[in-house]
Amino acid sequence: MTLTARLLAAGALLGLSAPNAAQTPAAPSDAKAIEQAFDARISSADQLGWLKDMSSAPNHVGSPHDRANAEMQLALFKQWGWDAHIETFQVLYPTPIATTLELVAPERVALGGQEPAVPEDPSSANLQGALPPYVAYQGDGDVTAPVVYVNYGMPEDYEALAARGISVKGRIVLARYGGGWRGLKPKLAQEHGAAGCLIYSDPADDGYGERDPYPRGGGRPSTGVQRGSVQDMTQYPGDPLTPGIGATAGAKRLTRATAPTILKIPALPISYGDAARIMARLEGPMIAGRARGGLGLAYHWGGTDAVKVHLAVKSDWSLKPVYDVIAVMPGRTRPDEWVVRGNHHDGWVFGASDPLTGQVALMSEAKALGALAQTGWRPDRTIVYASWDGEEPGLIGSTEWVEAHADELAAKAVVYINTDGNGRGFLGAEGSHSLQHFVNGAARDVIDPQTSVSVLDRLRANVRAGAYAGSTRREGEALALDAAKAGGDMPIGALGSGSDYSAFLQHLGIPAIDIGFGGEGGGGGSYHSVYDSFYHVTKFDDPGLVYGAVLSKMVGRLVLRAADGPRVPARYGDFATTVARYVGEVKTLAAGQREKDRTLRDLTRDGAFRLASSPDDPTVAPADKGITPQIDMLALDDAADRLVRSAHAADAAVDRLATLPVATQARMLALLRDIDQLLIDRAGLPGRPWFRNLIYAPGTLTGYGAKTLPGVREAIEQRRFADATTYVARTAAVLNAYADRLDAAAALAKTR
Amino acid sequence: MTLTARLLAAGALLGLSAPNAAQTPAAPSDAKAIEQAFDARISSADQLGWLKDMSSAPNHVGSPHDRANAEMQLALFKQWGWDAHIETFQVLYPTPIATTLELVAPERVALGGQEPAVPEDPSSANLQGALPPYVAYQGDGDVTAPVVYVNYGMPEDYEALAARGISVKGRIVLARYGGGWRGLKPKLAQEHGAAGCLIYSDPADDGYGERDPYPRGGGRPSTGVQRGSVQDMTQYPGDPLTPGIGATAGAKRLTRATAPTILKIPALPISYGDAARIMARLEGPMIAGRARGGLGLAYHWGGTDAVKVHLAVKSDWSLKPVYDVIAVMPGRTRPDEWVVRGNHHDGWVFGASDPLTGQVALMSEAKALGALAQTGWRPDRTIVYASWDGEEPGLIGSTEWVEAHADELAAKAVVYINTDGNGRGFLGAEGSHSLQHFVNGAARDVIDPQTSVSVLDRLRANVRAGAYAGSTRREGEALALDAAKAGGDMPIGALGSGSDYSAFLQHLGIPAIDIGFGGEGGGGGSYHSVYDSFYHVTKFDDPGLVYGAVLSKMVGRLVLRAADGPRVPARYGDFATTVARYVGEVKTLAAGQREKDRTLRDLTRDGAFRLASSPDDPTVAPADKGITPQIDMLALDDAADRLVRSAHAADAAVDRLATLPVATQARMLALLRDIDQLLIDRAGLPGRPWFRNLIYAPGTLTGYGAKTLPGVREAIEQRRFADATTYVARTAAVLNAYADRLDAAAALAKTR
Repeated sequence: MTLTARLLAAGALLGLSAPNAAQTPAAPSDAKAIEQAFDARISSADQLGWLKDMSSAPNHVGSPHDRANAEMQLALFKQWGWDAHIETFQVLYPTPIATTLELVAPERVALGGQEPAVPEDPSSANLQGALPPYVAYQGDGDVTAPVVYVNYGMPEDYEALAARGISVKGRIVLARYGGGWRGLKPKLAQEHGAAGCLIYSDPADDGYGERDPYPRGGGRPSTGVQRGSVQDMTQYPGDPLTPGIGATAGAKRLTRATAPTILKIPALPISYGDAARIMARLEGPMIAGRARGGLGLAYHWGGTDAVKVHLAVKSDWSLKPVYDVIAVMPGRTRPDEWVVRGNHHDGWVFGASDPLTGQVALMSEAKALGALAQTGWRPDRTIVYASWDGEEPGLIGSTEWVEAHADELAAKAVVYINTDGNGRGFLGAEGSHSLQHFVNGAARDVIDPQTSVSVLDRLRANVRAGAYAGSTRREGEALALDAAKAGGDMPIGALGSGSDYSAFLQHLGIPAIDIGFGGEGGGGGSYHSVYDSFYHVTKFDDPGLVYGAVLSKMVGRLVLRAADGPRVPARYGDFATTVARYVGEVKTLAAGQREKDRTLRDLTRDGAFRLASSPDDPTVAPADKGITPQIDMLALDDAADRLVRSAHAADAAVDRLATLPVATQARMLALLRDIDQLLIDRAGLPGRPWFRNLIYAPGTLTGYGAKTLPGVREAIEQRRFADATTYVARTAAVLNAYADRLDAAAALAKTR
Repeated sequence: MTLTARLLAAGALLGLSAPNAAQTPAAPSDAKAIEQAFDARISSADQLGWLKDMSSAPNHVGSPHDRANAEMQLALFKQWGWDAHIETFQVLYPTPIATTLELVAPERVALGGQEPAVPEDPSSANLQGALPPYVAYQGDGDVTAPVVYVNYGMPEDYEALAARGISVKGRIVLARYGGGWRGLKPKLAQEHGAAGCLIYSDPADDGYGERDPYPRGGGRPSTGVQRGSVQDMTQYPGDPLTPGIGATAGAKRLTRATAPTILKIPALPISYGDAARIMARLEGPMIAGRARGGLGLAYHWGGTDAVKVHLAVKSDWSLKPVYDVIAVMPGRTRPDEWVVRGNHHDGWVFGASDPLTGQVALMSEAKALGALAQTGWRPDRTIVYASWDGEEPGLIGSTEWVEAHADELAAKAVVYINTDGNGRGFLGAEGSHSLQHFVNGAARDVIDPQTSVSVLDRLRANVRAGAYAGSTRREGEALALDAAKAGGDMPIGALGSGSDYSAFLQHLGIPAIDIGFGGEGGGGGSYHSVYDSFYHVTKFDDPGLVYGAVLSKMVGRLVLRAADGPRVPARYGDFATTVARYVGEVKTLAAGQREKDRTLRDLTRDGAFRLASSPDDPTVAPADKGITPQIDMLALDDAADRLVRSAHAADAAVDRLATLPVATQARMLALLRDIDQLLIDRAGLPGRPWFRNLIYAPGTLTGYGAKTLPGVREAIEQRRFADATTYVARTAAVLNAYADRLDAAAALAKTR
């Protein structure tokens, strides 16, 4: 189908037509009326139509449908009145030419290959152009070797193996998904000398342990495989060949061999059906407790020659295009302040849930904003809507765009609001903590369609009911429970990585928010598989895309409230108290680690591990890593204390903003507009200079999970104690700079 | 084989011969030498020979081999110089005539029946005379009904079902073993109106979640079935027809219909292979989280007509004989003070591990004590060795014997030392806390054969290493960890029920100890199945019965140290501080329950459960059970405070015992000899007068698990708040009586 034909078809499908003066209502007059007018234009039916179309064929980077989806969106944005264009980057993105997996000992069994069709799901029978299961940026290779089960493949799992004298050197590790980001599994395997890596989806984690397997329910079936990226994004995301710069046509590129974020060993993802065929045959010590999953068999570590697997991957390593769709609605009074809102449009196969449920919500918002604009309304600030490509392989579209426009974004972007797919159930929000109250404010005003209370109230009820049923042990949970009980703002989580906010927040320091709904429906059972389809979404994940509309209303409020008025309504006290909590956590971490180190030494001295070792599963004492020293954190303590005082003073000053002379207002707003960028340290984090935010980062050993105060926290965890001391000072410095700026703003209110 | 022939064969097998003056060494001269001489006579080879013979045929109550084992032991005891006899009781013990289990909808599948042979295990192919899987004291019946999965079948599981509107009325419940005593499952099912009950062994609990399935490892295979008693022993154990009195030939008996401890609905135990055939077909809401087990499928609550089972059981309800073997070695200086030591000899099929690994250790002790006696040594106190019959169906042999000899035991028994099978690994001990130091003392002097340190030091190492690896959350674990770190006495657990100490401790108040080794080897994988065989024990549970000898040495020390010297070395301070801790627990329990009640009411008022309910698994709010009131526990607080002071004074007085005039010593010893019987309240516990110990009881909703200060604790838990108040007073009264006695004893030391 040609693009024009596609657009005509889409228009017909969606009942779109050109704006017509006779239909145009008057522009709404106040914020509440604007939001009501916005809500009235949000349509689940629109979203269903777009979703059906956009998920109708494989839409991974480089596929024809990926480009078609970009072009369809471009046409729609234009049709809705946006100033839109496609920005293209040329990036290294390997796609599999051949993948081979077979058990060769104790018997020959063919494994792997494409996921089979499910009769109820028409997409799954229509896999023309779909790639077989693979993980992007593994290192091609052809190996035959014994298998070692490594549980989640995280550092503590290698400690468990070491205690049993089992090496992965020259072997193929079999890791299960979970416990840390996918890409860490082959990376750690490679660091331990493994020859290859298989990653499977254990049913305890997203299969029958959680949900009925597809198609009875939305859980992962025995044939489901989670694709994904294994690029080492803990160093830097985006195109592996162009760190720090946009992957434009003429950009200076690394070679594939010198790109540090590409793996050296072959790796493949597999189903638990295939994993069980390997696991059932493994020898070696048996596993009880947390290192076993939910397969109906005894888990063994393996590592003997009895079980061997042949693993081979060959990829096409050519550059591929990514198509970012960028749509701009210029601001009326503050055009050089940008509110940026994004979701991505590329998927692993059909990508119906991830990312398109979020993408169609974004499109609903854009359509509604466009319609509002046709009434004569204009935002104060410029609104930029972005539909990213290449998120799945490595946040590529957003990262390259941010890198290509870094100076302009640093000067203009005031907030980045992200989604990445959507489900149904309960609001989940993470972000810069100065925006916590802002997010809560929107959640207070959006109604949950299942219960008719606000999504905030439903979230509070869920936290309280969950705590009653179970136990609330972790600090974060206790904090949320206290907030839910008190009816105050619900705490938002810190941003790690795993979606397109990374470059904004962690490379440039632009405050960011990531939100979505979830906790009901299909869970993660179709995640990154061929079963992430229109049928799966509409049957299990969000029937009728009811929550797609809720997401649009939630994000729309954030966009509207950020785009209108004198300032993005940050509340610095929330940030300051959160940072103070993190400082407390880091101190507790250091003290706990020191205590544990000493205990280990005592126990080893007393022979306790030897004495406790069972002949059923003989283990040796864990390695002595030394004693965590006392680390002087007074500078961080001082900075946090000061920050709390400065933040409360600044919040009070901001509350009086309207009472100040206009020129003073302007000076205060100018001081606060880019204050979050003060949290950036130009040198970045130790060993990964691309990550420059000293408050929020993805963990090098969590991948997605956030590490707050990462320079200090990870230095302690990873026993780089000199780095810890250095980053106590550097982190205190950025916090003090932030407090200086707050003080300067607050002083303006006094010296009127 | 005739008895004489058997004995000759046994003698030949074991190399036994009549005592011979030429072989007789001189009597050892001090306690240490006696223990060394005792140890030298403990032989794993003896134990292996006895075990092989005693587990060579089914030995359940009423079987020919059960009687033969009793007679063989009688002959051996006599041969070893003991004054031995068999005491017989006639008890109601139903054995299955026919058991039927089949799936009838959605299709017909035959289930149940005898466990199949395992080629490696010769016993399993030799099932002549073995009964098929059954649970004793279920109510015969023939029902066909839909199936409801009830997880562990405990009260909280019925709450989960109620929240989902699923009733078990008229249906057959399918419960998994664990989470509470077996007998509570059909009892609670019956109370909720169920028509029948199936109980299966989930692989998460004792199958491949813990051990390789038999015969690869010692874990329960898919065909393994756990037999057991479902008599309502929380009311009273022993013969259901003769509560409180010995089931002698002429005893006045209840009828089967009036015996309250017999179930009314049919029940059968099944394998997880069979359970999976039912579970895979169940409909109804799906189960995630703790209510699911380890089968490789999605768990559903069921309850629809889609899945129906036909369950029928018909039993022979005739009286059967139980044969207690009682062997006495009269004391020299204090013949009217009895140290009683027991294990049982009846099993469910071959009973090799349970009970015979403990029984052959007991026999080793008896042989060694007999040999010591032949050197001229005699204990100060009378030693009574008991080999109980009928423990499995309901602690029958011990209970009837205790009831038949209650007055004499109250007058003479100073301690009861129990074992019930044995494994390898780490010492486990429970008992009256005044004997905690006594148990630790023996453990300090017995060497662990795998590590060559004392079994006490190995236990400490295991607690410390376990705490390092995992987390130590529960109070008991933290207590043990502190003790292990400090190198002090390891705390012993409180006795609930599940073995033959119950009548001694809980009916008469005689202090008791129960010990055994475990934590390595086969675990519970053969428990109460045909696979509990000589092969299983010697391959997995305790190869070579190495720990059988360790158990003999451990128990031998307890027996020798209790039998010699002026007194059983109790330390009252240990009891007092433990009771004070229990009082604290009970107060915390009441406060926590009160808080939870209030939270429930708040959450229900705020609609939190309704708002949090997911359409995937709709649930309603838990029922409001009212608010736990403030309960005045000052009397208990006072009693505990006073007890601690009195106990320390008494311990100090006892330390000076040898310095006191002989007549004063005698008076003090007479005061302390039966002090534990002061913890008995003649009225017993609410609703179950047979249980009279106000400090230690099995829980009515745990069955095996202990409830300390049961009159108060269970009254709070079960919301019988008037009972709680009554039993605060009654419990304080027995503690005060105990403290009075301690004070009187301590006063003697002062008024010399």
